[in-house]
Amino acid sequence: MSKINLREKLEKFSDHWSPKVIAEMNDYQFKLVKIEGEFVWHNHTDTDETFIVIEGEMKIEFEDNTVVLKEGEMYVVPKGVEHKPYAEEECKIMIIEPRGVVNTGDIEGDLTASNDVWI
Amino acid sequence: MSKINLREKLEKFSDHWSPKVIAEMNDYQFKLVKIEGEFVWHNHTDTDETFIVIEGEMKIEFEDNTVVLKEGEMYVVPKGVEHKPYAEEECKIMIIEPRGVVNTGDIEGDLTASNDVWI
Repeated sequence: MSKINLREKLEKFSDHWSPKVIAEMNDYQFKLVKIEGEFVWHNHTDTDETFIVIEGEMKIEFEDNTVVLKEGEMYVVPKGVEHKPYAEEECKIMIIEPRGVVNTGDIEGDLTASNDVWI
Repeated sequence: MSKINLREKLEKFSDHWSPKVIAEMNDYQFKLVKIEGEFVWHNHTDTDETFIVIEGEMKIEFEDNTVVLKEGEMYVVPKGVEHKPYAEEECKIMIIEPRGVVNTGDIEGDLTASNDVWI
């Protein structure tokens, strides 16, 4: 493989809430996503999910609190925990999770993205 | 868990080649490391290993080429591939790999670090 430059990869797309795979480690995938506005409440019953903010600011709402993440900050959402990502302005993030995880968890809807799209 | 600020965590230690765990995702760990100088040739027979440069510049030497990684760049070293990390000046990186991986692979030596040290 070649090295991966996160900002160069981020320049290759502009849509929101649609994760792009940039690398795999064993059966895990690294995905870049641009987010803006509200996502849907969901959880992933089988896996933790890692968020790392590359640029901007996002929030992850939980049932009893909200976490604010800025550039250079990360959070691991434990498996099964209901959460709703949110970004007031466009935020660029990296998600790390096992191959095959659907962005909206068990809830299919308008924001459910194609899986395993590489850039 | 609380959110994790990578640069704040990096300020908490100054030793080189000694990974500090900052988070877990399923059975994987996120580790911060400060590196300077040459590491040893080694490989990890059972797992890929991800390097992300937070600050500075590092090289990963392979048997037939060398990859240069700068801030915001990443590389996944495939399982079983011999490699030697190197940094001319101090470089701050994040490593992602399964819990229990030893930094020097099968080769125990002066640079073999304690495993599972959290900050």
